[in-house]
Amino acid sequence: MKNEIKIFSPATVANVACGFDVLGFCLDSIGDEMVIRKTDKKGIHITKIEGFDLPFEAELNVAGVSALAMYEAAKPDCGFEIEIYKNIKPGSGIGSSAASAVGSVFGMNELLGKPYNQTELTQFAIKGEALASKCEHADNLAPALFGGFTLVKSISPLEILEIPSPKNLYATIIHPQIEIKTSESRAILPKEIPLQDAITQWSNFGSLIHSLHTSDYELLQRSLHDVIVEPHRSKLIPHYKEAKKAALQHGALGAGISGSGPSIFTLSKGLENANKVQDALEKVYSKTGIAFEIHVTKINTEGIKIL
Amino acid sequence: MKNEIKIFSPATVANVACGFDVLGFCLDSIGDEMVIRKTDKKGIHITKIEGFDLPFEAELNVAGVSALAMYEAAKPDCGFEIEIYKNIKPGSGIGSSAASAVGSVFGMNELLGKPYNQTELTQFAIKGEALASKCEHADNLAPALFGGFTLVKSISPLEILEIPSPKNLYATIIHPQIEIKTSESRAILPKEIPLQDAITQWSNFGSLIHSLHTSDYELLQRSLHDVIVEPHRSKLIPHYKEAKKAALQHGALGAGISGSGPSIFTLSKGLENANKVQDALEKVYSKTGIAFEIHVTKINTEGIKIL
Repeated sequence: MKNEIKIFSPATVANVACGFDVLGFCLDSIGDEMVIRKTDKKGIHITKIEGFDLPFEAELNVAGVSALAMYEAAKPDCGFEIEIYKNIKPGSGIGSSAASAVGSVFGMNELLGKPYNQTELTQFAIKGEALASKCEHADNLAPALFGGFTLVKSISPLEILEIPSPKNLYATIIHPQIEIKTSESRAILPKEIPLQDAITQWSNFGSLIHSLHTSDYELLQRSLHDVIVEPHRSKLIPHYKEAKKAALQHGALGAGISGSGPSIFTLSKGLENANKVQDALEKVYSKTGIAFEIHVTKINTEGIKIL
Repeated sequence: MKNEIKIFSPATVANVACGFDVLGFCLDSIGDEMVIRKTDKKGIHITKIEGFDLPFEAELNVAGVSALAMYEAAKPDCGFEIEIYKNIKPGSGIGSSAASAVGSVFGMNELLGKPYNQTELTQFAIKGEALASKCEHADNLAPALFGGFTLVKSISPLEILEIPSPKNLYATIIHPQIEIKTSESRAILPKEIPLQDAITQWSNFGSLIHSLHTSDYELLQRSLHDVIVEPHRSKLIPHYKEAKKAALQHGALGAGISGSGPSIFTLSKGLENANKVQDALEKVYSKTGIAFEIHVTKINTEGIKIL
């Protein structure tokens, strides 16, 4: 059995339009790298962090907290060192903390001979994610671990459904580099919503799930709407409407807020369309003076992987 | 081409739990029979009605109104006679008016050489359904015409999705013979609902659609919940809670209000379970003094058909 493993832990999009709070998907070319190493010395030790300034104390680090949760359950006769090469900017809305949280437990599980299944790994990772987001949720963890589209049906008990991905689906993601406070993005949501809007939302969500099963891109396009959350949260993202409009005009099937923002995701059929959408989004934000990062990526159906 | 056709127009269940207002399914052994006949005499003429006391004037009869809608669009150089052998009790909550509305247009379309597709037939039938229910909806029309499970994604433009049916799925339907006024069943619904409940509902609905695609009966069981409408409308159906509890205890995967009631639908895996549920429901209502009818039926994947 190996003593060291290098892994790629992908970025993810949660709150996919009408699937707010339950549907997520996994990205392919954006993610963190991590090295996990078995050691004689007991405990969890974070020995290297590159890319962003994050705490080395395991109890204060997302990857450390999930690692500790698994370590306490597995009680192995060894310890683990964790190196984190962070590429996903914290606070960008594409699952930065989730990538850290799943990376450590996925790697440790491999080195221990896979005692835990993916749902159990998600359980451990939830503990790490909770350190970052102050609540237990798996919207980004599930797609990072399982790949493709995932529906988190419930948290307690944890139930994750793997939804099929159409083969030719690409995401274009833009991260306008502004800060949105989690507290603000939560406070802006209404506690009560009109029943008619809720019906529209679940009609679209059921249709979206059907479209993913049938690879029906046109239906996917007609279903990727969010009448509940987007009208409120999009106000926190400057130039959101303009960006979304440009993306749709240049061939995107749909667009929405990634996680709680500020990143904006778009989905397109085929790489060519996804690239056109990239150009359109670049054009919008280039004029604003807001710095941004932009990515085009295939939907990653594999999820986290060994490098 | 034939000049006369006899058809079976099935009963249907709308408002399927978390799929309130959008999901319906088609029943197999309960339905009306109708004879549609081409005549030299122009116009739509209802010549026979058996089973229930309904108006013979085409403009006042659900089957007549949908027939007239199609007749005015098709402008054929003939007329049609309609005979209605009504088995589905009006007001029972299992699509009595929908069966009438689709029956006439389906039969006429066959006799004219099928100029219209199923979605176009649904458009005509909506006019008939509106006479009975005072609003345009296709929740019962769609499953009656298409068979199986249908999701009415939108009414304008009309968009109907056919959702796959697991092979071994049976419905047990009980109709406690009480009257629920449509106005009352509408008025009892809240205009605003908690966002958290709406999220639970669309999570369940997305999961339900996934379970139908994957024939996952256990997931279907875990998804067939309605946290929005059932808590209110079930108050209008005496002994609802007791009946639902008995059904679930005797093997039903789930249960809910059929349409806006008073019928209660349950779904079971296999005929044997569906029969056990029938016994359990009979036992509950036998003690109450409320007259009832009860049916066990396979999900009808074919929909309306020629006899």
